[in-house]
Amino acid sequence: MSDLINLSLDQAFRLSNDVLANNGFCAAHAQAIARTITRGQADECHSHGLYRLLVCVKSMREGQVDPQALPTVTERSAAIVAADAHRAYSLLAFQTALPLLVQKARQVGVAAMVINNCFHFSALWPEIEAVTEHGLAALALTPSHSWVAPAGGSKPVFGTNPIAFGWPRVGHNPFVFDFATSAIARGDIELHRRANRPLPEHCAVDDQGQPTTDALAAMSGAMLTFGGHKGSALAAMVELLAGALINDMTSMESMAFDNGVGATPLHGELILAFDPQLFANGNAEEGARRAEEMFAAIVDQGARLPSQRRYDARRRSEEQGVFIPRALYEDILKLLDK
Amino acid sequence: MSDLINLSLDQAFRLSNDVLANNGFCAAHAQAIARTITRGQADECHSHGLYRLLVCVKSMREGQVDPQALPTVTERSAAIVAADAHRAYSLLAFQTALPLLVQKARQVGVAAMVINNCFHFSALWPEIEAVTEHGLAALALTPSHSWVAPAGGSKPVFGTNPIAFGWPRVGHNPFVFDFATSAIARGDIELHRRANRPLPEHCAVDDQGQPTTDALAAMSGAMLTFGGHKGSALAAMVELLAGALINDMTSMESMAFDNGVGATPLHGELILAFDPQLFANGNAEEGARRAEEMFAAIVDQGARLPSQRRYDARRRSEEQGVFIPRALYEDILKLLDK
Repeated sequence: MSDLINLSLDQAFRLSNDVLANNGFCAAHAQAIARTITRGQADECHSHGLYRLLVCVKSMREGQVDPQALPTVTERSAAIVAADAHRAYSLLAFQTALPLLVQKARQVGVAAMVINNCFHFSALWPEIEAVTEHGLAALALTPSHSWVAPAGGSKPVFGTNPIAFGWPRVGHNPFVFDFATSAIARGDIELHRRANRPLPEHCAVDDQGQPTTDALAAMSGAMLTFGGHKGSALAAMVELLAGALINDMTSMESMAFDNGVGATPLHGELILAFDPQLFANGNAEEGARRAEEMFAAIVDQGARLPSQRRYDARRRSEEQGVFIPRALYEDILKLLDK
Repeated sequence: MSDLINLSLDQAFRLSNDVLANNGFCAAHAQAIARTITRGQADECHSHGLYRLLVCVKSMREGQVDPQALPTVTERSAAIVAADAHRAYSLLAFQTALPLLVQKARQVGVAAMVINNCFHFSALWPEIEAVTEHGLAALALTPSHSWVAPAGGSKPVFGTNPIAFGWPRVGHNPFVFDFATSAIARGDIELHRRANRPLPEHCAVDDQGQPTTDALAAMSGAMLTFGGHKGSALAAMVELLAGALINDMTSMESMAFDNGVGATPLHGELILAFDPQLFANGNAEEGARRAEEMFAAIVDQGARLPSQRRYDARRRSEEQGVFIPRALYEDILKLLDK
């Protein structure tokens, strides 16, 4: 008996959607979430794939996620669209506010989407790709729970604080990166714990501030940022732009609000969109040529563009479906029994 | 005889201004540049202090810097102000366009300054501080010359591509960071070469793609990014946002344009400004409180905020003046003889 279960993308989507609907999510939320989770699995981002159904439902059952609240979208200014998620998950708020973000970016060149009051469990690259599909560049930031110590310290202050960026390309998948400013993603620590594997070095300290490769010890101590003081500075920037600036919770506040439940973080998100036509004063094609020359110089020397592995996985998954551990599949099926 | 020369900040400014004026810079450029160089020295950013006068004058004498051209500032949209530097140094263009950037950020919440056609040799933090003085948050990016290999490669594609960010604080110096996405700054490599000191490990490869700590070998090979593939992704983002997006030269193009002269890069710069009042829907004070709680959690555990060393140096320099190596001082004095 294989330890892996094979699901088509359609099966993965329907399984996700059924689990969510069966746990009280309204159709709009269930579909938005199922779509994103299926995309994560298709791209073999395992910590953002079907595994996230466990986190998503647990947070809804034990935490304070509203599975039905619909987002309110308002125009804050010619350049800012704001979406209040009313303590539901973030994805539907993003989806609902996206058309206005695109419109504003085209009108004034740079525009921002502010999402407030959202529970957040998803990778940022699906949103980045959604913006680049409109021919815009995009930058997205969000805090999480305070699991990560600042450079020079050993007590958690920052979240894993991802930074994601995208650049639209004609005839190619967009240039997209999406990485945690922590040395390792929180979801990866959880996967290491489940698999009983040691963490890489330099990712975490235990609750005494000593370096550790034990996933459980790391979870009760602090994670570290990537890239020393530079990664730490970027993590702080994420707290400031996607927390303080938009007057929503920092990772410390989100952690305090969670109060030990271990649910998904509640906070905000900031997404910036940039219109190449306006920024290049009508010469976006010339700008695109400069970008393509740089991409060619990278791949021609045998180096990879950031999302290449994901795009390769996506092509495979579209042909063969996805493969998930049987134990995970069984854990997910249990969510169909309320 | 001391190997260090002590200059008051006023003396350092006047020396810089005299050197620049004596080398053909008009008063507006000489003052803008001298002010920034003096601030770099005062903050003990040695590679952006008085040493830069050598680079600045060399680039003007041997390269194609226009020491007199005044910038043209235009409003591109409600959110974008564009400054064409006409192949002069960038600082005067920034200074001239700043009032419009501030006005636009206050009106629509997020605004961008695009500087095109500028030679660029300066740190970004003086510009970041200038934006935060108006109560705005700021993000600045610029490419340089292609000295840095992408992750997984060994041939230069990226510049040292700094990212700088600032957050305004009431009653405190602003939270500011400014770092190269390369593992070491180009100016620091030059300082290592001048001092005949080995580079830190993992900063560079030689022209055969092999790791090196020799500054000269690094200069003919390639520098590496900080933080592996994440730093490399950020370096690419800087090329895309502050190159392709604003239709100005990437670091590769700037290097090709330089054609072996070794002058300062010619390209563009992107500065974003964010108004906390608009983003926080009028609750900027509440957002500021969240930020201050995070800063307290960092410093209370004995960790440092990013610019603390610079601010400490600034206070010292205001009292005692600055100290530079006698050899550097003598090199600078030679620039007074045309």
